[in-house]
Amino acid sequence: MKALVYHGPGRKSWDEVPDPSIQQPTDVIVRIDTTTICGTDLHILKGDVPAVAEGRILGHEGVGTVVETGSAVSTVAVGDRVIISCISACGSCSYCHQGLYAHCLAEEGASGIGWIFGHLIDGTQAELVRVPFADNSVYKIPEGVTDEQAVMLSDILPTGFEIGVRYGRVKPGDVVAVVGAGPVGLAAMMTAGLYGAARVIALDIDHNRLDQALAFGASDTVDSAAADWVEQVMAMTDGHGVDVAIEAVGIPQTFDACTKIVRPGGTVANVGVHGAPVQLNLQDLWISDIAITMGLVSTSTTPMLLKLVAQNKLHAERFATHHFDLDQILDAYETFGTAADTKALKVVMSRR
Amino acid sequence: MKALVYHGPGRKSWDEVPDPSIQQPTDVIVRIDTTTICGTDLHILKGDVPAVAEGRILGHEGVGTVVETGSAVSTVAVGDRVIISCISACGSCSYCHQGLYAHCLAEEGASGIGWIFGHLIDGTQAELVRVPFADNSVYKIPEGVTDEQAVMLSDILPTGFEIGVRYGRVKPGDVVAVVGAGPVGLAAMMTAGLYGAARVIALDIDHNRLDQALAFGASDTVDSAAADWVEQVMAMTDGHGVDVAIEAVGIPQTFDACTKIVRPGGTVANVGVHGAPVQLNLQDLWISDIAITMGLVSTSTTPMLLKLVAQNKLHAERFATHHFDLDQILDAYETFGTAADTKALKVVMSRR
Repeated sequence: MKALVYHGPGRKSWDEVPDPSIQQPTDVIVRIDTTTICGTDLHILKGDVPAVAEGRILGHEGVGTVVETGSAVSTVAVGDRVIISCISACGSCSYCHQGLYAHCLAEEGASGIGWIFGHLIDGTQAELVRVPFADNSVYKIPEGVTDEQAVMLSDILPTGFEIGVRYGRVKPGDVVAVVGAGPVGLAAMMTAGLYGAARVIALDIDHNRLDQALAFGASDTVDSAAADWVEQVMAMTDGHGVDVAIEAVGIPQTFDACTKIVRPGGTVANVGVHGAPVQLNLQDLWISDIAITMGLVSTSTTPMLLKLVAQNKLHAERFATHHFDLDQILDAYETFGTAADTKALKVVMSRR
Repeated sequence: MKALVYHGPGRKSWDEVPDPSIQQPTDVIVRIDTTTICGTDLHILKGDVPAVAEGRILGHEGVGTVVETGSAVSTVAVGDRVIISCISACGSCSYCHQGLYAHCLAEEGASGIGWIFGHLIDGTQAELVRVPFADNSVYKIPEGVTDEQAVMLSDILPTGFEIGVRYGRVKPGDVVAVVGAGPVGLAAMMTAGLYGAARVIALDIDHNRLDQALAFGASDTVDSAAADWVEQVMAMTDGHGVDVAIEAVGIPQTFDACTKIVRPGGTVANVGVHGAPVQLNLQDLWISDIAITMGLVSTSTTPMLLKLVAQNKLHAERFATHHFDLDQILDAYETFGTAADTKALKVVMSRR
C-alpha cells in the first residue's frame, strides 16, 4: 500500500510500504476513505515529538471501511463505514470505566495506549490502517453522514467540545470567550451552544479567522492585538469578565489572556498543546474563585456528536476548506502548512 | 473600649479607642466574647497587605453578643450570641445570589465588601465591633456550642472545607492528600470525610504537625522532606496518584508538589495564600485532565458546619491549643507567632 511516512525532522514521503495485518484478536483493518492533517502532524514533522520514530506512518484522523476483523471484534463487521477515533481504548480498565479513554491503562505492543496513531503505532494517512481495540475505538457512521463530516469527529470536534466546552462547565446564559480561532477554537465555538451559551466571543489576531468564526457560532469578535482588547471583552459582559475562557492556541500569552478576562467563579479551559511552562499569577488569582482545566480529548462524546451531525444540528463539513485525492497528500500538507496564506482550516484527502 | 491597633509594619498595641457605633441601618454592634488570630494577621503585621492603614483594628474572626442593632436588621436581636463571619456580604447582588459572598459587589463606605474586617474596616480583636450587612454576615449560635468551637467557623473550617474539599470535588472513595498540616490544612482534613474520602494523607516537613494531623482526620502521614515522598504517596494509591491534592501552604514548592501527585482526572485545590507567581508546567500537564482550583472562602457553608459541630460530628474545639484573656492579646500574638516552638494551632482570647 501507499502511506505518508515520517523520515525524521523535516522529511516525509508518500511511500510504498507493506500492508498492515491483524496482530491481536481485538484489531480491525480499515481501508482509508478520507483522512485529514492535524496541527500535531506539523509539530511531529518539526521534530517536536521525539517519541515518533523514523519510518512511522503519520495521521490520527480518518474515516474508512472495515476490510478485516480480528476474532474477538463484536461491534463492527467487514464492510462497515467507521470513524477511526484519534484515541484508542481498551474499554476495560479503570480509566476507560470513567470515560477517560485518553488515559487507558492497556498496553499496545511495547507502548501504552490512548493517542498512539501516527505517534507510537502506524497512523491513518495511508491506504490501510490497523486499528487496535476496535470495539472501543471506531464508531459506525449512519446513513446520510458524509466522510468529510465524519472525519471531523476523529479529533477536532470532540476536542473542542470535551476539553473546551465541557471542562469549561459552560452553562445556559454564559458568556464564553474562545482565545484562538483556529480549527480547535472553532470547534469549541461550534459546540458552546450545546450548553446554552448566551454569547460566544472569538479572539484572534488574524482578521480572516475572526470573520470565519462568525460562521462557526461566534456572536462577537475581538482583535486580541488591539490595545483595549480586555476592555472590549469586559464591555460584552457586565464588566466582571466572562464565565468561561477557552484557550485554543497553546502559548503563554494566550493562557495569561484567559486568566485576565475570566470572572470570579469562572473557568479557564486550556485546550492548547503547550511546549513550555506558563507563569500562573497565583499572588493575584488565589482569591479569584476560578478553576483552570486542561486535558487530552477522550473522544467519549463522539457518538453523541455524531447524532447531532446526522440531524444537521452541527455542520461539521464547514471545517473542510480544501479537498485532495489521497495520493496528493504532499500537496495537501503544503496547503495546510501555509494556512495563513491559503486560509485552510482542515484539508481533506479522499480515496479516488 | 480596648482594641488591638496596627501602627504600621511590625507595630501593634492594645489601645484605648472610641467605641464603634451604628452607621447603616443594616449594621449591628457586637460585644466580642471570643476572638482568635489568623496567619493573615501576621502577614499584615509584616507589611505584606498594604491596603491595611495605620490605626486599623485587626482581626476577622470572632464570637460575641449583639448589643445594638440597626433599624433594618431582622435576623438577629440584642442579646443573641453570634458567629461573626470573616466575609461580609449584602445578600442581594449577583455574586451573593450565587453564594460567592467573597465577591459581593456592595460597597462599605469607600471600599468594596467581602473580606473587610481588620483589612478595610475595623476588626474583631477588640471589645466591640461594628458588623455591616449583619443579616448576611453573622450566624446565631445554638445552645450547647461553645465559643471556642464557634470561633473556628468564622474562617478556618469553612476555608478548609469550601476551598479545599468542595473545590477539590472530593467524592466517596477518594484518596485525598493535604500538603501542609497547619490550621487550614487540618480543617481540610477534618472535613474531607464529609464527602466520603477513603484515605486522607497529611504531608508536612514538621513531625509534630504530622502527629497532630492524625487527630484531625488524616489516615496517613508523609514527611514531605523525605527523598521518596512522591513514591510514598503513590504507594498509598494504585500507583496513579491521588484523586485530590489540597495545597494549604501558599508557596511555589507546595503548589508544584500537588501537581506531581495528582492523578489523571483529579483536582489540585489551592487553599494557600500566595505572595508570588508559580510556574505551571503546562508542557507536561496539558495532557493530564486535571483541574486546578483556587479561591477566597465565602463562608456559605458556615450554617451547615455549625449544625455538624452542634451534633458533635465535627470537633472544632481541637484547634484551640492556647487560651488567653482578651487583654492578654499581645502574649497570644507572641505564642501564635512562634508556633513552631509553642506548637500553637489556634490561640483563643476570651472576655473575662
